[in-house]
Amino acid sequence: MADDTPAKAPRVSVDEFNRITRRALPLVEAFGFRVERLEAGSVTARMPYHESHLRPGGTIAGPSMMALADYAMYALVLGLVGRADAVVTTNLNCNFLRRPGPADLIAEARILKLGQRLAVGEVTIYSEGSEHPVAHVTATYSIPPGR
Amino acid sequence: MADDTPAKAPRVSVDEFNRITRRALPLVEAFGFRVERLEAGSVTARMPYHESHLRPGGTIAGPSMMALADYAMYALVLGLVGRADAVVTTNLNCNFLRRPGPADLIAEARILKLGQRLAVGEVTIYSEGSEHPVAHVTATYSIPPGR
Amino acid sequence: MADDTPAKAPRVSVDEFNRITRRALPLVEAFGFRVERLEAGSVTARMPYHESHLRPGGTIAGPSMMALADYAMYALVLGLVGRADAVVTTNLNCNFLRRPGPADLIAEARILKLGQRLAVGEVTIYSEGSEHPVAHVTATYSIPPGR
Amino acid sequence: MADDTPAKAPRVSVDEFNRITRRALPLVEAFGFRVERLEAGSVTARMPYHESHLRPGGTIAGPSMMALADYAMYALVLGLVGRADAVVTTNLNCNFLRRPGPADLIAEARILKLGQRLAVGEVTIYSEGSEHPVAHVTATYSIPPGR
Repeated sequence: MADDTPAKAPRVSVDEFNRITRRALPLVEAFGFRVERLEAGSVTARMPYHESHLRPGGTIAGPSMMALADYAMYALVLGLVGRADAVVTTNLNCNFLRRPGPADLIAEARILKLGQRLAVGEVTIYSEGSEHPVAHVTATYSIPPGR
Repeated sequence: MADDTPAKAPRVSVDEFNRITRRALPLVEAFGFRVERLEAGSVTARMPYHESHLRPGGTIAGPSMMALADYAMYALVLGLVGRADAVVTTNLNCNFLRRPGPADLIAEARILKLGQRLAVGEVTIYSEGSEHPVAHVTATYSIPPGR
Repeated sequence: MADDTPAKAPRVSVDEFNRITRRALPLVEAFGFRVERLEAGSVTARMPYHESHLRPGGTIAGPSMMALADYAMYALVLGLVGRADAVVTTNLNCNFLRRPGPADLIAEARILKLGQRLAVGEVTIYSEGSEHPVAHVTATYSIPPGR
Repeated sequence: MADDTPAKAPRVSVDEFNRITRRALPLVEAFGFRVERLEAGSVTARMPYHESHLRPGGTIAGPSMMALADYAMYALVLGLVGRADAVVTTNLNCNFLRRPGPADLIAEARILKLGQRLAVGEVTIYSEGSEHPVAHVTATYSIPPGR
């Protein structure tokens, strides 16, 4: 089906995405998020380690991980859809799996379904250097009509 | 059942909770979160409006709402359990319902289940002055043994 | 806003809904589900107790509770939207709170958001005669264009 | 970490699991569920196509897919933990991605985290013969102490 075939090239590049979001999303700059790889249907994003993400017990706060997942999914959807402003998150579900240590977080996002109205993806977050995921997210985005 | 009867008085007060979290959670201070009401099984928290929460389209970013919900739930669980460090979020599911306008966000959290090992609650978030929720969250927290 | 004002009367009645679904949904008849109250924005549904819902430990199986929640939400959405065939569930999140005993299950569904494209609601499930919920569900439904 | 290393061999075999659940779970027999592959950390389960799973529009009902996912996850957790009765589902989140056609459903489950108290996994469901998933589930199970 047409809606299941991702475009062969992403509709925004890594550089475009990082430039757009640094300007438009104050949180992105505050957290230092950046996309490192942006393909059609697959994205890698990074959150540099910084003590401002800590919570009691010396681990990284859950909301920082959810923000990173939402950011990686946003890049994934823009890479497939190519329109920025009107795409909105409608659902995000996060399972926190392990307490991340003091290291950068790496988010690997991939598309599960790109439809006419909704895009669904999953994001697995790792502490850099570990193979065990610290969090797993699924998220749904509403795509504006007429694209 | 014993595990279904919330303590009659919360185990931490509003002032204690705000003091603990401002010191321990850098994000709380950055976002300006505060708890306004903390009862055994029910909490009200506020996120003051600030343009740093905006995302494209002029609305408040989803991650800010999830962070507020997690913060309100954390107050709810500490009010019931009375131990801070070892309580961790294991799952958070957020449905984004409407785009909030430029106003403070108010989070109303209530307990659904307080067990020996897990606490589950729901949080409804409103724009101040509106009766229609902008987001709805359910979240689960793991409670350390031996309390 | 227009999309936040439920119709004053539901667009299908309890009798219509029960007749439609018994004919169209074999599972409904197998489980004995029925709607007892259907208002615009609020529904009560029942699953009669039957030993075929049991799982090891003598409690009611989780999938039976999720099926009941989905059924109650379907009645809720049809009561608001009035079109049956094209409404589909896009997300369902269930927290299992307590083990239900051998009794009928009562599902209370209410709408959180009725938009042009998506409807979101929550369902709380009780064992008949108990005030403590056994499960809590949020679910999202996609509404076809042109209604 | 000890809790992240799955046992090298599963603690129940396919035959044991199918025998236990057919006897103990009436729904399993009603739906015809069976496990086809059960390894330590990875399971394949099948739901044979039958018209009783249909819903309006000629597609398979969402609750049947959630039941299949819960069943596959149950096999996954028993294969890792080796105790049946006291393992309970605490959360299940399902994204419905595409309408399955009239074919068997195949569920691929894999473990995301096996801890002392909680196990988290994900299940991707396909129509047999298609590479596009029809549903994606994450689920959490509570593991009894003292195993």
